[in-house]
Amino acid sequence: MLEHFFQPRSIAVIGAAREEYKLGHGILKNILQYGFPGKVYPINPKADSILGLKAYPGVKAVEDSVELAVLVLPAELCLQAIDECGQKGIDSAVIISGGFKESGREGAERERELARLARSHRIKVIGPNCLGVINTYQRLNATFAANPPPRGDIAFFSQSGAICTAILDWAQTQHMGFSKFVSMGNNMDISEVDLLEAFADDPECRVILGYIEGIKDGRAFMEVARRVTRKKPVVIIKSGSTGAGARAVGSHTGSLAGSDNAFRAAFKQSGILRAETLEDLFGVAHALSTQEIPVGPQVAIFSNAGGPAILAADAVERSSLRMASFSRETVDSLRACLPPIASLYNPVDITGGVKEDIYRVAMEKVLKDEGVQGVIAINAPQAVIKGEEVARVVGELSKKFRSKTVIATFMGGPTMETAVEVLAQHQVPNYPFPERAVAVLEAMHLQRQWMERSTERPLDFSGDRRTVEEVLRKARQEGHLNLAEAEARQVIAAYGFSLPRSFLVTDKDSAVRTAQEVGCPVVLKVASPDILHKSDVGGVRLGLNSPEEAGRAFEEMMERVRKRMPEAHIHGAFVQEMVRGGKEVILGAVKDPQFGPLLMFGLGGIYVEVLRDVSFRVAPITDAEAWEMIKETRAYAVLKGARGERPVDLKAVVEALQRLSQLVMDFTEILELDINPLAVLPGGTVAIDARITLAPG
Amino acid sequence: MLEHFFQPRSIAVIGAAREEYKLGHGILKNILQYGFPGKVYPINPKADSILGLKAYPGVKAVEDSVELAVLVLPAELCLQAIDECGQKGIDSAVIISGGFKESGREGAERERELARLARSHRIKVIGPNCLGVINTYQRLNATFAANPPPRGDIAFFSQSGAICTAILDWAQTQHMGFSKFVSMGNNMDISEVDLLEAFADDPECRVILGYIEGIKDGRAFMEVARRVTRKKPVVIIKSGSTGAGARAVGSHTGSLAGSDNAFRAAFKQSGILRAETLEDLFGVAHALSTQEIPVGPQVAIFSNAGGPAILAADAVERSSLRMASFSRETVDSLRACLPPIASLYNPVDITGGVKEDIYRVAMEKVLKDEGVQGVIAINAPQAVIKGEEVARVVGELSKKFRSKTVIATFMGGPTMETAVEVLAQHQVPNYPFPERAVAVLEAMHLQRQWMERSTERPLDFSGDRRTVEEVLRKARQEGHLNLAEAEARQVIAAYGFSLPRSFLVTDKDSAVRTAQEVGCPVVLKVASPDILHKSDVGGVRLGLNSPEEAGRAFEEMMERVRKRMPEAHIHGAFVQEMVRGGKEVILGAVKDPQFGPLLMFGLGGIYVEVLRDVSFRVAPITDAEAWEMIKETRAYAVLKGARGERPVDLKAVVEALQRLSQLVMDFTEILELDINPLAVLPGGTVAIDARITLAPG
Repeated sequence: MLEHFFQPRSIAVIGAAREEYKLGHGILKNILQYGFPGKVYPINPKADSILGLKAYPGVKAVEDSVELAVLVLPAELCLQAIDECGQKGIDSAVIISGGFKESGREGAERERELARLARSHRIKVIGPNCLGVINTYQRLNATFAANPPPRGDIAFFSQSGAICTAILDWAQTQHMGFSKFVSMGNNMDISEVDLLEAFADDPECRVILGYIEGIKDGRAFMEVARRVTRKKPVVIIKSGSTGAGARAVGSHTGSLAGSDNAFRAAFKQSGILRAETLEDLFGVAHALSTQEIPVGPQVAIFSNAGGPAILAADAVERSSLRMASFSRETVDSLRACLPPIASLYNPVDITGGVKEDIYRVAMEKVLKDEGVQGVIAINAPQAVIKGEEVARVVGELSKKFRSKTVIATFMGGPTMETAVEVLAQHQVPNYPFPERAVAVLEAMHLQRQWMERSTERPLDFSGDRRTVEEVLRKARQEGHLNLAEAEARQVIAAYGFSLPRSFLVTDKDSAVRTAQEVGCPVVLKVASPDILHKSDVGGVRLGLNSPEEAGRAFEEMMERVRKRMPEAHIHGAFVQEMVRGGKEVILGAVKDPQFGPLLMFGLGGIYVEVLRDVSFRVAPITDAEAWEMIKETRAYAVLKGARGERPVDLKAVVEALQRLSQLVMDFTEILELDINPLAVLPGGTVAIDARITLAPG
Repeated sequence: MLEHFFQPRSIAVIGAAREEYKLGHGILKNILQYGFPGKVYPINPKADSILGLKAYPGVKAVEDSVELAVLVLPAELCLQAIDECGQKGIDSAVIISGGFKESGREGAERERELARLARSHRIKVIGPNCLGVINTYQRLNATFAANPPPRGDIAFFSQSGAICTAILDWAQTQHMGFSKFVSMGNNMDISEVDLLEAFADDPECRVILGYIEGIKDGRAFMEVARRVTRKKPVVIIKSGSTGAGARAVGSHTGSLAGSDNAFRAAFKQSGILRAETLEDLFGVAHALSTQEIPVGPQVAIFSNAGGPAILAADAVERSSLRMASFSRETVDSLRACLPPIASLYNPVDITGGVKEDIYRVAMEKVLKDEGVQGVIAINAPQAVIKGEEVARVVGELSKKFRSKTVIATFMGGPTMETAVEVLAQHQVPNYPFPERAVAVLEAMHLQRQWMERSTERPLDFSGDRRTVEEVLRKARQEGHLNLAEAEARQVIAAYGFSLPRSFLVTDKDSAVRTAQEVGCPVVLKVASPDILHKSDVGGVRLGLNSPEEAGRAFEEMMERVRKRMPEAHIHGAFVQEMVRGGKEVILGAVKDPQFGPLLMFGLGGIYVEVLRDVSFRVAPITDAEAWEMIKETRAYAVLKGARGERPVDLKAVVEALQRLSQLVMDFTEILELDINPLAVLPGGTVAIDARITLAPG
């Protein structure tokens, strides 16, 4: 779909210039110098020829067809140029020019105009305000960066031009090869979603890297990413905070969610490896583009020195990888070839007195072990061993055992330079610090787990839509976006949640009578649409052991709440069946501006915001994702039955999460929702309290 | 005290060799080549002269006095050599030779022998099995590494030789200067404590770096470190897990502590900056050795590109640093000199179209702002700006504003090489990734906080020692190391803990009667020295609302517990006053093998092990440290009075922690102790349950 950007047969450089200091000269020169094999047409009304090529006054003057236009014009001339591109039938344009959204209000208006015009001509646009596009396999360098990166398997897109230039520069020394390189600039038309899709089926791309600051359409992004990451790894660094901003939040879920949690959840659910730093981004990409993804988590640490081996083993212990246990044969054969003071068990320390030939023999034994899926080969400078020789050994063994992942940690400076070159030639990534090598291997392992995960669709938990529609419509009509407790109960009951029996009482006598009927102990809760956090104002009393106690509690509560919240409308209080035993969890949902409904799970009660032991997923969720939400929290250990307690009915919680997922997907006008607590008993769940806020408008 | 190791006037190289391939040749050559200004005596009975120097058959044959002996002999000859050193009156020896503890049982025996011999002659030893010692200020390179590091302010010691060689190699390219460099080898005599002490008063050392795998004497280490870190930063990477190993643990505290928590606490309490990776270790050391420690946490991000600036600001937000707010004047003066599309607020983005002169003017404005204590100067490759020119600007401004900390992030590869050189010449540390620059600045800020902290001594909370002695003696006599509940209550009561009233009952009738006397509701707890986790076996019943209920509960409990633990001795049960309201915390102590009594604090109840929201400190603690223990946990927010609840009496908890600290310092035979829960009420604390285990023997 984007082939004219990456494999054009002809390019018009609109704004090509004769003056060397101009960008329009540099870009034309870069295209020619890199050896672009197709036709190139400089467009400049004031020149006859530029850099030996015939120049044209306008793109329409070119006789042959043009597949890609590169615009390097002052912003105010871009609109007319795009119009002419449209008339000429060009369908792809890279707009390098700045002076649009990034430059203030006038520029933003110009960009909207540009977008309209491009759309009307069906021209796809990368940019404006970007560095351009590179395809190393097509010898296409339509950027103003003079040095295209080495050819390789990585496709890269970036929403920051500076990150692009830094990376192009790094690539020269880091032995990292790229196939495609896209600076997205203002991200006006072609988005990260389009690029993911284009790179997914690109045989010249083995790993996709991205730097993003925001996502245009969260749902589309997840859908495409989920497909792409099954085939090849996508590593993204996401910077900056976006999202809801200063909106006042009323729910626990709302206050805990934040846009970063939405991104984190979305990335997890679509198999994207999130890099936390630029260093991670490149470290992980390098390994993924050179080595096979490990088939399992078992790592061997192989070293000619003890200290670094321990550091590496420590890092493995902290990760989701595991230290491999060697077979009897491996240990015996290591014993046969290594000095007596060597460590034969994982981590292997062959000791500093050993030469390259023994390094080779011993490392081969470790690679042969069937319980080993990845090896971190450490080499510290030692008197008797030559770094470059060890590098050759590691490189050759990596080729021989292609199905095992080999990562190197050659520590040191100048004496390791040649060694690092040799490793690069053999496609063995090297990280000078052992901890980083482990982190990279762990990321690769996560990619393996994702690719092997079975695909599932969300199950259907449709509820009684009609009832919910009616409740929401009525609440809106009555002008309250914070649903009253009775309304919230109706909504969740319609989606299959069990509730404790509950009756509204408006005076002391009816409180006493109702407590009698429900059966003590009962709970008393203030009934008011204006009070969101009832326990904060003394609006909840638990464990009332007799009807009389309930009556007294009613009087006290009315007095206290009226004093604390004199403005609130108070309908009375609910006398509620008291649910005893089990554990309390919180289920929540909040509408994220980029991804839509976001679900939350955590251990319930009033401390949820303090302990922050919660997990998030973008709705809708599958059964497996609901399980993961629970298992991600520390509370999982409590729910499983910590310290000999009876385990609660976790399946019921998993179902409840899916019911909630269905509800917020069916009613996207729900802005925030807390079910807190949801009591989890050995035989099911009961939603003890619920709060729902609707989106305005 | 160690001056003969670092400033000897004369050295004997015992085992100096004529053959070039021998270590004994290399070391002598390194000493001479580096230009050691003192006398050097090769000792070798089979040579007349080596490398142009007269050789001696033994150290005793040297006419003049010798201040340092360097031994490069086969292990079996070292003992005699040390004996001769003693006779010659040499008081310092570096033993390079291997073949000792590291090589198995025979070697370990030889090392013990060597230690005895050295001690008898009062010879201080570094090694054996080490790389040697370097002092760049004395032109002393008594190692077999040919390239000593550049001269500088860092003193380094390492328990791993491989880490030493790697670092010596790195130092060549990383622009990191060292003054002293010690490979500790087997750590037989001179320890990390001795070296800390020696470096503390060394004017040539501004930063102390260390790599350690274990500590010989934890308390001595903390005491010295606490003093040293007040004067200069100490950055240590600690690898490997040591400690208690497989000892079965009976308490929550025991199961949560682990040796890494002890190290973490000890480092925190003695002001040591703990590096998590080697990369951290060097990154932080480099900045500390070149820039001033920032006087406050306020950071400005100054960049010629938006993307990296956002990444840096994100990292600041995640750290304990703060983004500085610029003064009105700063913003106005930035507006006056920068293009309209620049970002004038922190992070400052001067944009890519700006040249060096504007970079200088604008960065100077930022440095002038009184609200700015540190600046991260980011430079991404841009068309119009020259990296090395920007580096010069940053370097010169850093000199001009010496009291402000300037850290650089010049991103890119080859085009930045010269720039990075220029930065190094100007003593501005450079980190190619913005996140790392922020991490380094944060570590420097922690050092500042530590240095400004007021010193305090632990307060005296002595209790009734006599009573505790008596209880512990009796328990030992009766052969139970797990104290019975009544005993544990006596112990903590003797140190000022309040306890709920509690009476032992042995049958149903007395249970009923006692409940009547104590006043319902009461708590019933099984009384048995063999049951540590009472609630796990149904041995705790709360909220018994009438004497009859208490009687029934007693019968049921006896039956249930006997069924579940038929082997346990059951003395009956305690009828206990029920403490209501307040919050429950856990206080604990466990004896760490390296550091002695280690204290724990956390939110109490049965989930403490699951939520792991706990903090640790090595006892004894000061008042301030007790406060920190509380504030470090998430539970702090709960105790402060989350969600409008009344705050509890935190001062009482702080005092309780100090009482506990005193108790375990006074009775180091206490192996594990849990006070769980400690109820914290608005007016004090009540220790509801306590368990104590004594060390055997």
